[in-house]
Amino acid sequence: MSKKGTLVGVVVGLVCLGIVFVAARVVAMRPASTVKAGQIPPGEYDPAVWGKAYPLEYKSYQKNLEMSESPTGFGGSLKVQHSVKEPEILVNFKGMVFSKDYSEDRGHPYAVKDLMETKRITPKSPGACMTCKTANLIDIYKDKGWVYAKTPLAELFPLMKHPIVCANCHDPSTMNLRVINPAFIEAMGRRGVDVSKASREEMRSYVCGQCHVEYYFEPETSRVILPWDKGLHPADMYAYYEGKPGGFSQDWIHPDSETKLLKAQHPDFETWNNGVHGKSGVSCADCHMPFMRDKGQKYSSHWVTSPMRNVEASCHPCHNQSGEWFLDRVKTVQNNVWQLQHTAGLTLSRAHEAIGKAAMRKNADKKELDKARELVRKAQWYWDFVAAENSMGFHNPVQTLNVLGQSIDMSNQAVAAANRAAGSVF
Amino acid sequence: MSKKGTLVGVVVGLVCLGIVFVAARVVAMRPASTVKAGQIPPGEYDPAVWGKAYPLEYKSYQKNLEMSESPTGFGGSLKVQHSVKEPEILVNFKGMVFSKDYSEDRGHPYAVKDLMETKRITPKSPGACMTCKTANLIDIYKDKGWVYAKTPLAELFPLMKHPIVCANCHDPSTMNLRVINPAFIEAMGRRGVDVSKASREEMRSYVCGQCHVEYYFEPETSRVILPWDKGLHPADMYAYYEGKPGGFSQDWIHPDSETKLLKAQHPDFETWNNGVHGKSGVSCADCHMPFMRDKGQKYSSHWVTSPMRNVEASCHPCHNQSGEWFLDRVKTVQNNVWQLQHTAGLTLSRAHEAIGKAAMRKNADKKELDKARELVRKAQWYWDFVAAENSMGFHNPVQTLNVLGQSIDMSNQAVAAANRAAGSVF
Repeated sequence: MSKKGTLVGVVVGLVCLGIVFVAARVVAMRPASTVKAGQIPPGEYDPAVWGKAYPLEYKSYQKNLEMSESPTGFGGSLKVQHSVKEPEILVNFKGMVFSKDYSEDRGHPYAVKDLMETKRITPKSPGACMTCKTANLIDIYKDKGWVYAKTPLAELFPLMKHPIVCANCHDPSTMNLRVINPAFIEAMGRRGVDVSKASREEMRSYVCGQCHVEYYFEPETSRVILPWDKGLHPADMYAYYEGKPGGFSQDWIHPDSETKLLKAQHPDFETWNNGVHGKSGVSCADCHMPFMRDKGQKYSSHWVTSPMRNVEASCHPCHNQSGEWFLDRVKTVQNNVWQLQHTAGLTLSRAHEAIGKAAMRKNADKKELDKARELVRKAQWYWDFVAAENSMGFHNPVQTLNVLGQSIDMSNQAVAAANRAAGSVF
Repeated sequence: MSKKGTLVGVVVGLVCLGIVFVAARVVAMRPASTVKAGQIPPGEYDPAVWGKAYPLEYKSYQKNLEMSESPTGFGGSLKVQHSVKEPEILVNFKGMVFSKDYSEDRGHPYAVKDLMETKRITPKSPGACMTCKTANLIDIYKDKGWVYAKTPLAELFPLMKHPIVCANCHDPSTMNLRVINPAFIEAMGRRGVDVSKASREEMRSYVCGQCHVEYYFEPETSRVILPWDKGLHPADMYAYYEGKPGGFSQDWIHPDSETKLLKAQHPDFETWNNGVHGKSGVSCADCHMPFMRDKGQKYSSHWVTSPMRNVEASCHPCHNQSGEWFLDRVKTVQNNVWQLQHTAGLTLSRAHEAIGKAAMRKNADKKELDKARELVRKAQWYWDFVAAENSMGFHNPVQTLNVLGQSIDMSNQAVAAANRAAGSVF
């Protein structure tokens, strides 16, 4: 055996090993699925048609039809009235539609059906109410512009063929993520963000954020506005409402306390944005639509649900604790938030009652009454900002608990001011 | 060149590669430092002597002598009175020593000096006060048993040669971690934990937890007790104090509100224990005494300080965000906690005043006064549990903010009850 032979052998051996190593890396990096873009005609909103090209995504989307309790005890998709667990809702929303009907949301496929059935809808309800309920918004807005918002909702019902479906978030020709709610696009624009230039990572939150946000209808036009010009913290939005041209906003006047109040609407995106996941660049889809595999085929789950149902896919890409550990942790956060939310809601309802009683007294001190109403207006906004949000504080425990603490303080102070107005000794 | 030669060459090549690989792993795994156990004689408490065998640890321990502001704006080691920023302290601790002197703690090397100088010490102060201030506790307790706790502190001063030093946490013969505070060992024992059998990982929190905890002195004996029999949550400890044989405990009676109050003592260990780091098995030392390297030599930093001073060593073993990101996040948590802590403290001081005023009125309603005092007692415990803790809530933001929200509510209710006692209209 020659020395040269040995040397060549060593080199050949190393090269072989290198080839095997590189080949293994290439196989590992190969995408397991290929996006089949261009198969869906524009204007096709039926998810069953999209489902033929994307069977795994469609199969998981269909899971949104299931209704069940949440694994943590908060949220879920059973259609139960919030007032069963939180009777304070009936006092705090007295005089407006949320005291008549305020049930837990069901999944996206039920959006149109639930809109048509809710007692919150009246013959006077404007078209703006359907903004986030149907993919047909695309054509309706293209056709009418913002005029649709003032058009009576009942006139638009026949046009709402589909609820929240694939087309709400995907361009059928490229399958790229997109947002269709003009109110979101405008509000982001006012914040200096051109949504059309957003990265895919950003879009994985924007598609959710286009609807899971606080909004109001502009009084004359019913145009949908997201009150974000001063920031996304509840204090920023309160300052926005207080500073609106023509005096501060109101959604209704409470019949007992005669307070001009604001109704908060599911500020999930804003709450997440300021929290530890938002600040770490973790998108809504990362946790709520995690990547899954079915026979080696990778896909994004379109069952938009609690991450606690699939800790492995949702949490383990970043965290390594057990499923049991996560459930315990999330429950701890939510139980702590629920305790303060309930206290805040109950204290608020006592404040409405105290102001109402004080106002009925002859010679009630008007200054103190005004002070009490100012306090209760803000206390209700802070409480409702949390109560209307869908994570029982998990999206941002620190901000949420702080805001509830402030709400509790203001409601108690409102009670004290009302008592002073009524002629208390101190 | 023979085929056999080539084959042998390939095998030799692969074997060589394997040897290099294994050797590299072994070098990487080799501990960079070797513990030099057995060099310190038992009873040697002078850190300078230990420092000759452990120069890197000693050099970092010496950094505890530096006094500086905290990177987050909360905590730090400058000796400033808390009442400068929180004047409510002067009302809430009226009638007891913490209203006379309540300065920020300096580092471990100052423990004896600060004890001797504080205005909280009187000629009547018991020896129990020195429990956590000196390594000489070891011999004092060995010599006297719990009798030391009742011995006048002034008598023990000459025996306190050293402050908190190496020997408080290390066995000199093995360098193993150890705890020397008998109160901690007993309290853990009552919770079913035999500290002598604890793992090193557990000990990396126990050595801190032996002192950074809530405690009280048993009235007759001055024996130090950790009130943990019902759990480590402030509600559990409150239940413990309420349920003590012979009626509930008190540290003093507030001169204005005439309320029997409890003083909380730095419950850092308890707060951490229930928080996300504690629940994840991250020890005190992991963040506050991280592993460092000096010219390749690995050592544990003995500069016990804010992890924000060294994010790379303290946080990056588990998290990958930037130092700037961490500082912003910790500040957000602490600012949110501080806001509620300050509100809780101020509301509490108003409650003491309201009760005091109400009690001075003729025909004040005794039942309402008692109710107000009960509320203010618990509200003060909850507020102080946070105010006396050293992390401004970071050790457990969720529990901390929840507890502050409850405190704010109870103090407000105490004011309302006091007003009713005084004959308010409602």
